[in-house]
This record gives sequence, structure tokens and C-alpha cells, in this order.
Amino acid sequence: MRVIFDPRQTEHAPERELHNGAWAPYAEVPARAESIAALFDCQPARDFGMAPLEAVHAPEYLQFLQDAWTDWQQTGRGGDAIPYAFPVRRRRALSLERIDARMGRHAFDAATPIARDTWKSAYWSAQTALTALEDLLTGTQPATFALCRPPGHHSGHDYMGGYCYLNSAAIAARHALSSGAKRVAVLDVDYHHGNGTQDIFYESADVFFASIHADPSTDYPFYWGHADECGAGEGQGTTLNVPLPRGTQWNAYRDALAGVVERLSAWKPELVVVSFGADTFAGDPISEFLLRTEDYEQMAQLVATIGVPILVVMEGGYAIGDLGANTASFLAGIATAL
Amino acid sequence: MRVIFDPRQTEHAPERELHNGAWAPYAEVPARAESIAALFDCQPARDFGMAPLEAVHAPEYLQFLQDAWTDWQQTGRGGDAIPYAFPVRRRRALSLERIDARMGRHAFDAATPIARDTWKSAYWSAQTALTALEDLLTGTQPATFALCRPPGHHSGHDYMGGYCYLNSAAIAARHALSSGAKRVAVLDVDYHHGNGTQDIFYESADVFFASIHADPSTDYPFYWGHADECGAGEGQGTTLNVPLPRGTQWNAYRDALAGVVERLSAWKPELVVVSFGADTFAGDPISEFLLRTEDYEQMAQLVATIGVPILVVMEGGYAIGDLGANTASFLAGIATAL
Repeated sequence: MRVIFDPRQTEHAPERELHNGAWAPYAEVPARAESIAALFDCQPARDFGMAPLEAVHAPEYLQFLQDAWTDWQQTGRGGDAIPYAFPVRRRRALSLERIDARMGRHAFDAATPIARDTWKSAYWSAQTALTALEDLLTGTQPATFALCRPPGHHSGHDYMGGYCYLNSAAIAARHALSSGAKRVAVLDVDYHHGNGTQDIFYESADVFFASIHADPSTDYPFYWGHADECGAGEGQGTTLNVPLPRGTQWNAYRDALAGVVERLSAWKPELVVVSFGADTFAGDPISEFLLRTEDYEQMAQLVATIGVPILVVMEGGYAIGDLGANTASFLAGIATAL
Repeated sequence: MRVIFDPRQTEHAPERELHNGAWAPYAEVPARAESIAALFDCQPARDFGMAPLEAVHAPEYLQFLQDAWTDWQQTGRGGDAIPYAFPVRRRRALSLERIDARMGRHAFDAATPIARDTWKSAYWSAQTALTALEDLLTGTQPATFALCRPPGHHSGHDYMGGYCYLNSAAIAARHALSSGAKRVAVLDVDYHHGNGTQDIFYESADVFFASIHADPSTDYPFYWGHADECGAGEGQGTTLNVPLPRGTQWNAYRDALAGVVERLSAWKPELVVVSFGADTFAGDPISEFLLRTEDYEQMAQLVATIGVPILVVMEGGYAIGDLGANTASFLAGIATAL
């Protein structure tokens, strides 16, 4: 399978994050992507420019991401920019000047810092997804893998969070529509709900967003991913959330996935974008599902029964010693099934 | 002047706050209130129970404040509870279980921890305001001083922030209405905008909220306090915001205050609640106005020209060495003018 990876994606390296009320080392380290890239013959990303990013994210948000670290430094503070004050629900949109205010305006957690090279890595993460999409659309292979990093699925139209800045899966899905596809499915199998992707397509009839994830009543991102969130407006019915309890093993996961695959197959997408996180792994340090390495191959085979081209986009996964093997297992399942 | 202070207000003592992207010692320390209390013959608070608090704050929020520290400890984490993930603007209200989610649901910053005795101190801070109000309504003095701590004006109907948990000024203002007053003004002269008080009364015609504060385009709380926020619905026109630039000295402050006092006088309140913060002081470590100790006496004399009973409620002020003198200067101005 063709694998796209750009070394500029590893330059983003925040020092720390606010976790459980205290600083912890930043879990989304460059070594994650590097450990996967080492297993494959990776092709570099090509540059599709800003237009596909602007088709998903607000212009002021894209500008904010590019300026934030410099603006933060210019206030005389060292270190990564950390949001700490946030507009409460229902607060009006404001044109804000101060970097402190803009950090909170465009974030939903205090655990997603902006470091010196965050924009560069996020930009090339998005381009990686676009390159893998293009290779899928124009190539002869039925699946490609975008080794994106930083991940993207927690990032919405105008906000960052959960290690995510640009939503590469959403950018690829919308670019597929721009390239002529009529119906694109995004299937999110990361441990955490893909709230950003859901928000972006919540009222869209041409993108079906389906997610299997840890119950948000116990797990981040808390405020999204509940089973009764089904889309709105023209997108009513094209969002599907299947929260599962902590401790879920493969058998229960497989049953949930089979139901989701059935729904997606019935909807007849032309393309499936898989937001793949390996943090459902039993050994993941920040998650509570119990999948094994070999389960990912079965997971992929089940997904492949939808029977359309598949773009795999990397999201989370923090058990670095097993991350490459888990990802390779998933990709092997796709490759053998298609 | 009668001064109310309850020693239980000093038990709340968080260790640290997230400030400028790093931990800083918690600035709102018990010594603040103690340094003021030492200058007066203070009377203890009486207990008016939960009803006046419930008249301002949401029941689920009051329950959250009481449970949060214990719930946080029960997850196995030590230390103060710190919010770190927040629902973004427009997110629906949710019934959330996990303490992490409830922290963010009820906070707008990551700098307002809940420590073991936070509820107790906040409760008695509110009772202190109610006691001072009652003494004003039933007594012969034209003004009383509620030495509240923790402060309250950043706390809204269902959220905490900016060192504030229960909005004592708002609780007193609404209790005055319940006690028969028809029109109550809240005048906020803290360095920071009193966003919680504004939110609580934004659609109320019987409370006029006026605030002079640092421009929110440069200063916390950023998302509120802009000059075009004037109230809504029945409260249209009974909110007045006068943002001033950093570096403001007494002459410019006095001119702004004179305009506000004129507006309030014309509205003919029966009672004025003053949210008094001494962080407009030139020596304040976290603020950027340049008032001197003697200016507070003049400030108070100008406020007193409204000519109705005045309840002074303590809000911020972090130059502890001067906090007592600045507060005493303000109270002296009230006492001589009335």
C-alpha cells in the first residue's frame, strides 16, 4: 500500500500538556510517527496549497494558527502558547486582538499548546492526507495510507484541541467531494470521539460521519460523541455515534463495528476515509480499551467489506513500542481484503 | 461603617494557578482578606441559607461546587481540581457525569481551581454579603462593607472563573429585590470586567449593571466588557461598560466614573451595590491602572453622590501590602460623603 509521510510533520514538539490537573510530558511526540514511518517505504507529501484547508477551516482560525506562537513570544513570555481562558457557551463571536484571548477563542482544552513549528507540521499533515487522497483517486490501488501527524479529528471549523490543529481527514473528505465524489464516508475508529470531524459535517448530507469510541460520559472529549447525536438539518441521519464502555475487548468492538459497517454500506459511499487511531490498544497509556495487535487486521478486513476505495488517515495511539505493529496490522487487513 | 467578615472565608487556599502558560502561586490568597480585616472591628456573617444563592445560581452548579473536590479526589488524583477541557461555543447543554467534564462545563478558565475548602469559603463569602445587606436594610447606617473572599464578580449563573465561585454582589442585589427593593444598581470598579454579574442581570430591567475596567481587548476576561454590550431583552439599556486603556490614571478614571455615576443617578436606584476591587492600584502585581491610595477616597465620594444606601462588596486587589490602606481609603470616602 502506498504510504505518504512528510518529515516536516515531526518538527512540532510541544514540551508539556495540562493533564489531570498537572503538567505531563506531551504525549503526542514525533517518535509516534517516526516509529510507524520506519516500517514502510514512505513517499513525501506534495503541496496542494491553502485552498483545501480553507474549504474546511475558518480563515481567521488558519491565520491564528500561523501567528500564535510568534504573538505569544512577543508578549515577552517564553515557551509554548497555552490557552487558559475560554468563552463560555452561548458567548458571541468577537474580533479579539490579544493572543491570550485568541488562544482560548480557538481552543476547547488547555492541553493543546502551540509550539514554534506547530503550523508547519500541521500544514504538512494536511498535505499528507491530500497527497494520499490524490494517489487513491488517480492510482490503481484500492487504498492508501496518510501517516498524518499531528492528528486532526478533534479539530473543528475554528478550533483546536486534543493534540489536533488541522482536521486532515475532513480536509481530505471535502477535497474528494470537490474532485467529483458525491458521497464520502468518514469512519473514525480512534479511542476518542472525533468531535471536530463531526462538527464540520454535522449538517452535511454528502458526508456520513460514523464513530466508535469510548463513552464521552467517562472519556475525553466529554461534550461530543453521545449516542443521540445524529446530525442536523440536511445532515440529519448522516452522523452515527457508537460509544462503548471502558474495558471493551475485540468481540464487543467487532459487533459494534459490524453494525456501523452495515449502515455505511447501505448509504453507498464512493470512498471511505478511515480516521485510524491505535489508542484502542490494550497497552495504550492514556486509553481504556483492550484490543490486541492481531485485532486490527480483522478490524480492517471488516471495514474493507464496504467495498469502496479507502483512505486511511492516522490519528492517535500512544503505546509507541507497539504503534508500528498495530498500524501495520490494520494496513495488512486492508491490503488483503481489497 | 459596619464591616462583616467571616473567618471561614480564609480556608479556601488553592496551591497554584495556570498563568501565562505556566504554574504561578495562587494570587488570591487568604492574607488578602486578613490584611483588610485587621484594620476593622469586624462582625461575623449570619447564615441566610441556600435560598438566596439558588436565586442567582443554577442548582446543578451549586451541587457541583459542593462535590467537585471530593469527586476529583475519588478519581485517584491528588491536589486541587483543575479544569482543562471546555465545551466550545454553541455546544449544547449536557448532563455530564465525569468530574473532568463537569469542571470544564462550569468554568471558563483553567486558573480557578477547586480546593478542599472552596465551597465553605465561597458559601460564607456569599453569607457575608447577605449579612451586610441585611444590616444596611434594617439598620441606621447609610453604608456597610462586606469583606467577601473569595471574590465573586467573574462567576455567572452556572460558571466559575477568575478566582470567583459564587457571585456575592449579584446574590446581594437579587436578595435586595426579594426584600422589596424595585431598582438596584451594581457598580463594578474592579480592574477586571465583572462578566459574571453582567451575565446574570443582562436581561433584567430591575438591576442596572455598570462597570469601569481594563479594556477586554487587552485584559482578562477578554470575552466580555466591550463597550457595545448594553443589555438585552427587558434589560436593554441597563448594562453599561466603560473600558479604559492600560496606564489609566485617576484624572481619566474620575471622568469615566463621573459619567457612569450620572447615568446611575438618572436611573434612580434605591440601593447601590459596589463591587470594589483595589487592583486598579498602581502597585498591583497583575493589573495595569495607576490609581493611588488617596484616589480611592475621591472615588468613593463620587459614588456616594448617587445619594442612596451603599453596600460595598470586596472583589479583587493583589498588592497585599497596600490592600488594607486602599480599602480603608475607599470606605472613608463613603463614610464622609454619606
